[in-house]
Amino acid sequence: MDIAELAAGVASGNRRSLARAITLIESSRNDHRERADALLDALGHSGKQALRIGLSGTPGVGKSTFIEAFGMMLVGQGLRVAVLAVDPSSTRSGGSILGDKTRMERLSREASAFIRPSPSQSQLGGVARRTREAVALCEAAGFDVVLIETVGVGQSETVVAEMSDLFLLLLAPAGGDELQGVKRGIMEMADLILVNKADGDLLPTARRTCADYAGALRLLRKRSQDPDGFPKALLVSATKGTGLSEAWAEMNALADWRKDNGHWAAHRAAQARYWFAEEVRQALLARLSTAAARDRMRDLGDDVARGALAPAAAARLLLADLGA
Amino acid sequence: MDIAELAAGVASGNRRSLARAITLIESSRNDHRERADALLDALGHSGKQALRIGLSGTPGVGKSTFIEAFGMMLVGQGLRVAVLAVDPSSTRSGGSILGDKTRMERLSREASAFIRPSPSQSQLGGVARRTREAVALCEAAGFDVVLIETVGVGQSETVVAEMSDLFLLLLAPAGGDELQGVKRGIMEMADLILVNKADGDLLPTARRTCADYAGALRLLRKRSQDPDGFPKALLVSATKGTGLSEAWAEMNALADWRKDNGHWAAHRAAQARYWFAEEVRQALLARLSTAAARDRMRDLGDDVARGALAPAAAARLLLADLGA
Repeated sequence: MDIAELAAGVASGNRRSLARAITLIESSRNDHRERADALLDALGHSGKQALRIGLSGTPGVGKSTFIEAFGMMLVGQGLRVAVLAVDPSSTRSGGSILGDKTRMERLSREASAFIRPSPSQSQLGGVARRTREAVALCEAAGFDVVLIETVGVGQSETVVAEMSDLFLLLLAPAGGDELQGVKRGIMEMADLILVNKADGDLLPTARRTCADYAGALRLLRKRSQDPDGFPKALLVSATKGTGLSEAWAEMNALADWRKDNGHWAAHRAAQARYWFAEEVRQALLARLSTAAARDRMRDLGDDVARGALAPAAAARLLLADLGA
Repeated sequence: MDIAELAAGVASGNRRSLARAITLIESSRNDHRERADALLDALGHSGKQALRIGLSGTPGVGKSTFIEAFGMMLVGQGLRVAVLAVDPSSTRSGGSILGDKTRMERLSREASAFIRPSPSQSQLGGVARRTREAVALCEAAGFDVVLIETVGVGQSETVVAEMSDLFLLLLAPAGGDELQGVKRGIMEMADLILVNKADGDLLPTARRTCADYAGALRLLRKRSQDPDGFPKALLVSATKGTGLSEAWAEMNALADWRKDNGHWAAHRAAQARYWFAEEVRQALLARLSTAAARDRMRDLGDDVARGALAPAAAARLLLADLGA
């Protein structure tokens, strides 16, 4: 397909064009990559901006149910919603966390919603780039909100936070001991903590959990990009639909404050610089991933392991061999 | 100075030669680097091995006092002891954590001890390489024990653990809440946790802290490279000198078990492979640190930040410009 035609389809908001465009940027074929770059370049100056919302939560907290309920609410308000995922484990687990659209059955049937599974690549760096480019395509396609979901494993939260305007942490009600289970680093990334399943028998526990996290958030250093009262902990119930509009109001209040105070643009610029540096590093390190480089690296690694060669000397030999 | 002469001096255990050799490997001058490589190559096949002990602990836990007391005990047993440091913050704080030998006044006067401050470089990668090479020089100089000290900041524990045979975590007595303050990752690296200041009024608190950590260690997954009962938490008092010989006995028991079970050699081989891969990565990324690369990167970063260029496209331009 012609790139100009595909770009026009994406820009008009056509979901099939968007899906094909994302498939193109996910390809690792060199000729596809060139076309993907041309596509991104053609769409890069649309000026359209979505609200990019990162969402993290461990399995079992109800992420899919939350996204479905929250997404349906936004669609009901006339907004267009895209859902993307960063799941570096998807190749190992044999399927993406978003591979099955039946996870969000109602939302996936909505004309103004777009759901895309995580690209199946084992390298977080590769997944990060594809997801970031998919976000750009969704923005060019005129989506109002882009939700970027991740499971709470390894570095994937950092990756998602670096491409989000707001970062949400979804939690389930739990005893006080669980508080330590959430890594401090993730707490520090969160703009809103949402305690899900705040209904029925779990409501009292959810209230306690929410109060615990609200207390923990107050102990964190105040961030200059936040108005008073943020980051916040709130109660929601994805199954009952309660707390969702309040959460959405808080997200908008925070986004508006940051736009008014210059933090929004500064944050996006800093993210762009970060991804540029990351692209440069990845491109340099990609030279080590050819078959020839890997073979030579294994052989030299054997020499190093048995003490016949020092690490630095072996590195120089490898780079000289690669002409790199 | 002639490299062969310097190598002979180091191999004979001469401390002045060792100090000069370490100064040579710490130099960033290209001609010095070539001579440093020749020196490491000349000394690389001595077959001498020291017990490399990594030691981490936040400021205030009494690291210097511990190293002085522990080092004096080893020296008293006829062992030769070298002390190195990894402190990536040393340039910022205006002085190395080991810059002042008066921190270990008695040990620094011992003929069979050698104390070397952290190299003053801002890049952890650079500090890691120099320290690793300094460890190799200390081994070639016939030291029996090499202590590698680090403050508990950022990634420096990982760096030290990757060049150590044993990893010690030094802690101060503290209330139960403090347990969460130690990152799980560092707990998982530790072979021994030493609760220092277990004397006088602090003894009861130290006992409780030690029991808390012993309990926490039992919850960690059993590691295949450990005999039953490891990792362990022990009480020590660096000022009173109590618990030091017990801690040393545990270190030797663990080292002997690992040697008998093949883990020792496998661990060193894996570390060598790790550092080889790390050297290759650092050498590739070093191309970004020239003045020309930095200037170009800043300019392209400006374009990316204001949205005129996509991160991936800017990365390709940069690498093409660098001919890299």
